[in-house]
Amino acid sequence: MTLDVPTVNGDTRRFSSRDEARSCRHTWPMEQRISLVTFGVRDLARARAFYEALGWTDAQQPDNEIAFFQAGGMVFGLWTKLGGHGAPGIELAHNVRSPEEVDAVLANAQHAGGTIIRPAHHAEWGGYTGAFADPEGYVWEVAHNPDWALAKDGSVRLA
Amino acid sequence: MTLDVPTVNGDTRRFSSRDEARSCRHTWPMEQRISLVTFGVRDLARARAFYEALGWTDAQQPDNEIAFFQAGGMVFGLWTKLGGHGAPGIELAHNVRSPEEVDAVLANAQHAGGTIIRPAHHAEWGGYTGAFADPEGYVWEVAHNPDWALAKDGSVRLA
Repeated sequence: MTLDVPTVNGDTRRFSSRDEARSCRHTWPMEQRISLVTFGVRDLARARAFYEALGWTDAQQPDNEIAFFQAGGMVFGLWTKLGGHGAPGIELAHNVRSPEEVDAVLANAQHAGGTIIRPAHHAEWGGYTGAFADPEGYVWEVAHNPDWALAKDGSVRLA
Repeated sequence: MTLDVPTVNGDTRRFSSRDEARSCRHTWPMEQRISLVTFGVRDLARARAFYEALGWTDAQQPDNEIAFFQAGGMVFGLWTKLGGHGAPGIELAHNVRSPEEVDAVLANAQHAGGTIIRPAHHAEWGGYTGAFADPEGYVWEVAHNPDWALAKDGSVRLA
């Protein structure tokens, strides 16, 4: 079995196995971009209303726990459940183009001195996601979300 | 005296006074974008080395307190002094095109229910900056940095 993984350049990268993608150290640099900044909030309605009062519009709120605003080429989230897994109040996310790339970026982060705090797994919301903490303890989720297409430059647009 | 303030559309907005800009409530929506995410760090060299090990390059480090990486259309910062003014470990910044717009966005944020935690002032580094906390306590700096030009879409590129 081989895995063909699309890359940022529109090229394809071939792995002979999932394990190879996972062990792909130092050969899959994480692109220099942030996909999502999420604030953990106690009161979602109040927080959303505040950003709307600032002039922000078109929030997507799939349920009563989370809301997303488009913010330039990235997404800004408000989430009532952040903090439940030891994260600080703010979490960044780096979205990638495939589950294999999630594995590769997490392996790379671990090799770089990061700590895997949530191993990659298939999430309830349909994506594939894991997270590492940097040496200061800040958390980056690394995620493939099939519902959020990445542009060529890596920017994310809410559908 | 009148103030002509460039806007995101390339238009100019005219204020009759600085006070008018400051009191410009609900008429100057904050654009939906984040300019800068900064992590407060204890060990700048270690933190910078980690992101470089992830594959991030071309950090700008003007002194031994702060380093900046370009991150898509925004900037990612590591700063040893963050936290000294009551901020959490992460602070977002929203950069604008003029000092007058700093005043207007801060006034708008206060009107929206935010708390001004650092009134706008001329900073040592040559810009004009202030900060508000949102209802959950998260801090947004609002800044005009004459050294960081904003593109038409509001994105920021390190020089």
